[in-house]
Amino acid sequence: MAQLIDRQDLSFLLYDVLDVSDLCQRPRFAEHTREVFDAVIDSSIKLAERYFAPHNAKADEHEPSFDGQRVTMIPEVKEALTHYAQAGLIAARYDVELGGMQLPTVVHSASQAVFTAANPSTVAYPFLTGAAANLIQAFASEELKARFLPPMLDGRFFGTMALTEPGVGSSLGDLRTAAEPAADGTYRVKGQKMFISGGDQDISENIVHLVLARIKGAPIGVKGISLFLVPKFLIDTHGQSVRRNDVALAGLLHKMGYRGTTSTVLNFGERDDCVGYLIGEAHQGLSYMFKMMNEARIGVGLGAAAIGYRGYLESLAYARERPQGRLPSNRDASSPPAMLIEHADIRRMLLAQKAFVEGGLHLCLYAARLIDELDTATTPEERAMLGNLLDLLTPVVKAWPSHYGPKANDLAIQILGGAGYTRDYPVEQCYRDNRLNPIHEGANGIQALDLLGRKLWQNRSQGLQTLMQRIQATVSAARQQAELAPLLDEFDKALTLTQQLTAQLGQALTTQGPDRTLANAALYLDLFGKLVVAWLWLQQAVVAGRLLAQNDPRQAFLRGKQHAARYFIRWELPKIHHQAALLSQLDATCLDMQDEWF
Amino acid sequence: MAQLIDRQDLSFLLYDVLDVSDLCQRPRFAEHTREVFDAVIDSSIKLAERYFAPHNAKADEHEPSFDGQRVTMIPEVKEALTHYAQAGLIAARYDVELGGMQLPTVVHSASQAVFTAANPSTVAYPFLTGAAANLIQAFASEELKARFLPPMLDGRFFGTMALTEPGVGSSLGDLRTAAEPAADGTYRVKGQKMFISGGDQDISENIVHLVLARIKGAPIGVKGISLFLVPKFLIDTHGQSVRRNDVALAGLLHKMGYRGTTSTVLNFGERDDCVGYLIGEAHQGLSYMFKMMNEARIGVGLGAAAIGYRGYLESLAYARERPQGRLPSNRDASSPPAMLIEHADIRRMLLAQKAFVEGGLHLCLYAARLIDELDTATTPEERAMLGNLLDLLTPVVKAWPSHYGPKANDLAIQILGGAGYTRDYPVEQCYRDNRLNPIHEGANGIQALDLLGRKLWQNRSQGLQTLMQRIQATVSAARQQAELAPLLDEFDKALTLTQQLTAQLGQALTTQGPDRTLANAALYLDLFGKLVVAWLWLQQAVVAGRLLAQNDPRQAFLRGKQHAARYFIRWELPKIHHQAALLSQLDATCLDMQDEWF
Repeated sequence: MAQLIDRQDLSFLLYDVLDVSDLCQRPRFAEHTREVFDAVIDSSIKLAERYFAPHNAKADEHEPSFDGQRVTMIPEVKEALTHYAQAGLIAARYDVELGGMQLPTVVHSASQAVFTAANPSTVAYPFLTGAAANLIQAFASEELKARFLPPMLDGRFFGTMALTEPGVGSSLGDLRTAAEPAADGTYRVKGQKMFISGGDQDISENIVHLVLARIKGAPIGVKGISLFLVPKFLIDTHGQSVRRNDVALAGLLHKMGYRGTTSTVLNFGERDDCVGYLIGEAHQGLSYMFKMMNEARIGVGLGAAAIGYRGYLESLAYARERPQGRLPSNRDASSPPAMLIEHADIRRMLLAQKAFVEGGLHLCLYAARLIDELDTATTPEERAMLGNLLDLLTPVVKAWPSHYGPKANDLAIQILGGAGYTRDYPVEQCYRDNRLNPIHEGANGIQALDLLGRKLWQNRSQGLQTLMQRIQATVSAARQQAELAPLLDEFDKALTLTQQLTAQLGQALTTQGPDRTLANAALYLDLFGKLVVAWLWLQQAVVAGRLLAQNDPRQAFLRGKQHAARYFIRWELPKIHHQAALLSQLDATCLDMQDEWF
Repeated sequence: MAQLIDRQDLSFLLYDVLDVSDLCQRPRFAEHTREVFDAVIDSSIKLAERYFAPHNAKADEHEPSFDGQRVTMIPEVKEALTHYAQAGLIAARYDVELGGMQLPTVVHSASQAVFTAANPSTVAYPFLTGAAANLIQAFASEELKARFLPPMLDGRFFGTMALTEPGVGSSLGDLRTAAEPAADGTYRVKGQKMFISGGDQDISENIVHLVLARIKGAPIGVKGISLFLVPKFLIDTHGQSVRRNDVALAGLLHKMGYRGTTSTVLNFGERDDCVGYLIGEAHQGLSYMFKMMNEARIGVGLGAAAIGYRGYLESLAYARERPQGRLPSNRDASSPPAMLIEHADIRRMLLAQKAFVEGGLHLCLYAARLIDELDTATTPEERAMLGNLLDLLTPVVKAWPSHYGPKANDLAIQILGGAGYTRDYPVEQCYRDNRLNPIHEGANGIQALDLLGRKLWQNRSQGLQTLMQRIQATVSAARQQAELAPLLDEFDKALTLTQQLTAQLGQALTTQGPDRTLANAALYLDLFGKLVVAWLWLQQAVVAGRLLAQNDPRQAFLRGKQHAARYFIRWELPKIHHQAALLSQLDATCLDMQDEWF
């Protein structure tokens, strides 16, 4: 088997580029060292290779089934997750007092990437549980925390996020699930939720659903939504299950990929007896959800980069061992065939994958490190600066890898050819699994509106200013390396263009209104993402050049980094010029298209 | 159910744009009229909707199985194909004397597009049978023709093309299957073939395999390959099955899509008793195969456009009936939600699909009409001119729709969101099915080498000159319509650029050699394809403008055509400028990447 994620690249990104060891200076992480981080990553690789990767295809082939009474899944899923929980990985980021490791998010993310590369649908269960636990930890009452957090963190209870409803999709303000206060201070929840991942399974003792609902009489739209904790089994104060709550599985949805993760339709309160506990204050549900959204969205981007990475390494291994054809200049049919990797077009497809997945992984780990900096910031100014930067980057971190990760998987299939199209190789499953990522946690079109309509301008564009400062710092460092001059020329043009365009679009929002200005938001998101990832590749190239000058032993690896930066900045980045031309004209081709013309 | 292919568009392309009625002037088609063509298309739509579309998902879910003895398939496949054969569609293009309809290829292609949109894996069987029959018809002895063609044309025998072998892939010169002459004038064939579509099934009485093999002592490489007819059952001169030939199904391959079409590993001559009949002359097998390759490759492009088209219409229907969110300028949460199609970004995704699939279909029908012109050409000069143009366009016709058809399917999924990712809607299957098309019948990387390394220069570039003349004719016509001026500006720039670049690359092939010049052939193929499809869109816009000026009743439809042309030429075509920059520098980024740097 090929590696899941290149171990050498993980070290390079974490230590050489992101200087994660430096986090150990902060009180929260003071007990840690690079050795501890490495141990977490190495044991994650071992667990992933031993318990997750082997049943990835099997869980896809034998997806969960529902006989009207209960869900049945292959037993390997539970086994893998038991090992995962025992290794302390669900609670990895939590305080030591809560049984956690106080691990930095960035290190946990590297671990997550490895598990997702091995088996995205199995690791989705603890991922969702972690997301739900974060919300409970941040906003629920002490009593709810005491009852539900410990069994979630040790893997006995799993969590879900129950947002979407039939017919509502991305427009959460229109949701209809209702909650009525009961005499005992709890609520009775009633409604149907759809596309709820992990909404039922046969793995955990209990399931903690975090449900968005509208308390009777609440304001319409997004301002009238509250967040409820709705367990599958009601438990007493000792954590013992008392009885089944009125939450019923209406059915499983059958997906193209991610088939090992159940996707469910859930009915709450069919018998008017669904008990829910309000989390925090009434009508604040969506704002709570949004506060955790950054992390969930970064998780999606990370997963997309990881699945892309898996496909890249599989196709690389194939290209190295498979003889096929001859170079164009070789007319001697009796000569031995070349290896696939010797063909320029195969190198193109490998290089594009490398640029997409290593760049995508860097982007997600960068954002994860920002979360750590934010969590441990010591001044309000620092917190505001980091928070605004993270908010700005979040739509990019969600959308960019989820667009380019599947593109990488597409190239991996193409390299394997007919073999890649069969289910005998893992690349076709990567392609199917990864196709979910541009859709969930806010479809990429929503991310584009979020970026161009809101995040760029939030808090007087503080996030954008911080980003530009950081980009300038990288540019200054790059100027020290003569070799990088041609890349810097290209990058500088792109940077200036993006700055001018962004200012222009900011004005247009006022003068032309949002419909026209945001019509091509998807183009802007792609352009902005290309600039951000080109910046990160420039950063990798700067670090690689510095290490090479110091005679670092990783010569070939570091030259590969320089060359991937070259590829991205020469081949991918200049695509923004045409995008910028359309954007700066506020091109109305799409907006003007009429329904009846189709 | 949405339409499979827009009936109005088929009429527009066939009659208004391609003037297919004009073919009836030629003796071969003199018995036909537009009414006959329409009747074929309408009955194809009926058959496709009634017998093909309904089991498309079922054949995917219940793929063919092999118990070691025989292959089992769902019965709907055989039923559909019986109706298909009874309608005379397998023999549609053949002479009336052979039981055919003497239908023009372009009309038959329109019919094929409809069936492929409905169910690509079922219609693959007659498609392959037709391809095999064409080869037999063109190159086999009268005796072989008499024995095998009639049962193939009436659907009792099916055909396959058995080219690829394990470890050989696109490099046919390396194939190892051997053939030894026997005393009776037949041959004994021995070897293993892989990825043979339709290599076994439970539908037809017999299977006629066309097998590439090397006669003992033949020259090495592509010049030593011969073509053999190898039936599953040997038949006597009365067409009665005599005994099972020594062809064994070693196993079925399990694919991501196209699952209803068996993909097989076949063992020929395990007991040294596999009888094969030489087709034509020894060592000419590959040249025969190449003479039919144009049609097979156009068929792949057509299928890719058709599957793309199906997804487009499904997502269009969904976008029209699904309310979702509000326009950015609408801050009133109590207002009713907008329909999906009202959002600019949804229109972008629909417009891109429309441009890709209607442009792709036009391209394939254009090539099909060229085949008709070639088949009925009256002078050697005309035949040479048409043949060179068709040869030049073939790699584009194969690769362009097979690249952009799956892109369209990707957008269709995105429009449906979570629903599109489930198997409850047909778009995810379209996406999986269509992913085959960039791989088979020569992977798109091979098409790129064929175009830039050979077809552009073949016969002193006569194909390219003819293409440029035809493009100029369209440009002249477009100049008559003031409204098209902005598009013409953009198109002219692209045309000049492509001409200069092509001349430059032609010189580079001599001065720099093929390895460097062809390293970025994939980029050139995409660039050239964009120019060709932009030309076709310009042509559609010219026709639409002319009809609108004549107060044609199809006002909305024709405005949609103009607008899609606008989209393609504004949004897609200018992407070639960056590609041309890399190509004209003979950029060596991919070529220079080293194996050990990955």
